[in-house]
Amino acid sequence: MPNSLAFIGLGVMGEPMAGHLLAAGNSLVVNTRTKAKASGLLARGARWAESPEDATKVADVVFICVTDTPDVQKVVLGESGVLRAARQGMIVVDHSTISPSATRRIADEVSKRGAQFLDAPISGGDVGAKNATLAIMVGGDRAAFDRVEPLLRVMGKTITWCGPSGAGQLTKLVNQILVSVNNMAVCEALTFAKKNGLDLEKTIAAVGAGAAGSWQLANLGPKMIAGDFRPGFAIDLQQKDLKLILAAAYEARLATPAASLVHQLFNSAQAAGSGKEGTQALVKVFEKLAI
Amino acid sequence: MPNSLAFIGLGVMGEPMAGHLLAAGNSLVVNTRTKAKASGLLARGARWAESPEDATKVADVVFICVTDTPDVQKVVLGESGVLRAARQGMIVVDHSTISPSATRRIADEVSKRGAQFLDAPISGGDVGAKNATLAIMVGGDRAAFDRVEPLLRVMGKTITWCGPSGAGQLTKLVNQILVSVNNMAVCEALTFAKKNGLDLEKTIAAVGAGAAGSWQLANLGPKMIAGDFRPGFAIDLQQKDLKLILAAAYEARLATPAASLVHQLFNSAQAAGSGKEGTQALVKVFEKLAI
Repeated sequence: MPNSLAFIGLGVMGEPMAGHLLAAGNSLVVNTRTKAKASGLLARGARWAESPEDATKVADVVFICVTDTPDVQKVVLGESGVLRAARQGMIVVDHSTISPSATRRIADEVSKRGAQFLDAPISGGDVGAKNATLAIMVGGDRAAFDRVEPLLRVMGKTITWCGPSGAGQLTKLVNQILVSVNNMAVCEALTFAKKNGLDLEKTIAAVGAGAAGSWQLANLGPKMIAGDFRPGFAIDLQQKDLKLILAAAYEARLATPAASLVHQLFNSAQAAGSGKEGTQALVKVFEKLAI
Repeated sequence: MPNSLAFIGLGVMGEPMAGHLLAAGNSLVVNTRTKAKASGLLARGARWAESPEDATKVADVVFICVTDTPDVQKVVLGESGVLRAARQGMIVVDHSTISPSATRRIADEVSKRGAQFLDAPISGGDVGAKNATLAIMVGGDRAAFDRVEPLLRVMGKTITWCGPSGAGQLTKLVNQILVSVNNMAVCEALTFAKKNGLDLEKTIAAVGAGAAGSWQLANLGPKMIAGDFRPGFAIDLQQKDLKLILAAAYEARLATPAASLVHQLFNSAQAAGSGKEGTQALVKVFEKLAI
């Protein structure tokens, strides 16, 4: 018997993820803000629901993939939200990257209805979503995780249960500290190299294989050199995640000076109109600092 | 006919490097501040010289591996220094990490005697020196580089000619920006994870294979978790290199906010007595900031 699933939020990540669940033979109902974005899935056999509530009524597992904390709050707790149809034994899986503490409050509300809420933010970008190679970091009830893990394996490659509710979001924020600070390192290092007259390709070849190596250097370094600022991951989204990091650090009374610095420098990138560009466009801020 | 080589500075890096040159069948004369450090090489057939000048007299290629700018200036330009015996056709190869602009001034002095001075700083630590897997970043005359390249291949694996005099040092400083800022990212990310109650091994496993991945995370992250602060690369040396970066940035009127921040945080690590510990001990500064 196929699983009865719902998917809410068919953006650049959600649409291909829902497609994998459909292709695996599951029964799928979808809802998203702009119905046109569902057309491909509807043509392939998914059914449309008019609201998150309606989608939840017919599903045992509800996946959510929207942008920020208020979006998830609206989809779950709002009028015609998931919570209204939540019931014993069903599971909500949130793939959005949002506040860990807000996540725990939402999960509490859902559990009052006898259902489970798992935070399951993703990493790997649109390419990872299309190729089902996402990393999925999951927090919440372990038994609920075990039940949905086979479905997560249809959409991702590295599936990790990180701990109780919020642990998936916290792990994603750890990921984003590393990603954004390593990117800042590449921007600063290549600007230092360029302004000192070094050949940039040769420089990356000389240092990239050793202790200076990183995913950010290997993947974004060449784009910076080529002036290719098309988004793999947009600065506006990176800033949203950095704001979550700074808020979570404040809640825990933690100092995160490096994330704070890169957030400030991205403010400048956004001021210059680079918000929709990829995070590698941060290099333009460093270059401007050297003029 | 074997090459006539000299090696000046038999520290934790220089001693094994000189050993590789000797093992390759070259004639080798050595000089270092503390003669006892030469005993192993002397027992294997190297000869002792009383000064850099004396060592240079009998060598076609002189290798130097000391600590900082003033050390190289003393070895080359000082009393009984290399310069006094420098002559047409000989080559000086400096493996120390020192100021790029001071390097160019030393190279100018050496070239006035008809000799060539190559800056050739190394990366890869004591393990790289022992296993001859160092990265060697070379600046200076291309023809001189071509002549010594076979000798460099005896000591290292990734040998790169980076450009004119100083380009090797500048490339090494690019390397150190990346190394130190990536390390800061790991310290901040793991402290964020720890104070928020995440399982640290699991966290690294969840994020390390993707866009957050780096050599620093893979190699220093587990040491931070284990509380193993033994030096692969000591904080005191990292600080020396960061001072070179900040000075070179000032000379070029470049802003390096990330390197500046990590330098400040290492000041605190040194204040706490961690100077001789490995750079991963920076995590203790982040932990203290969260108490």
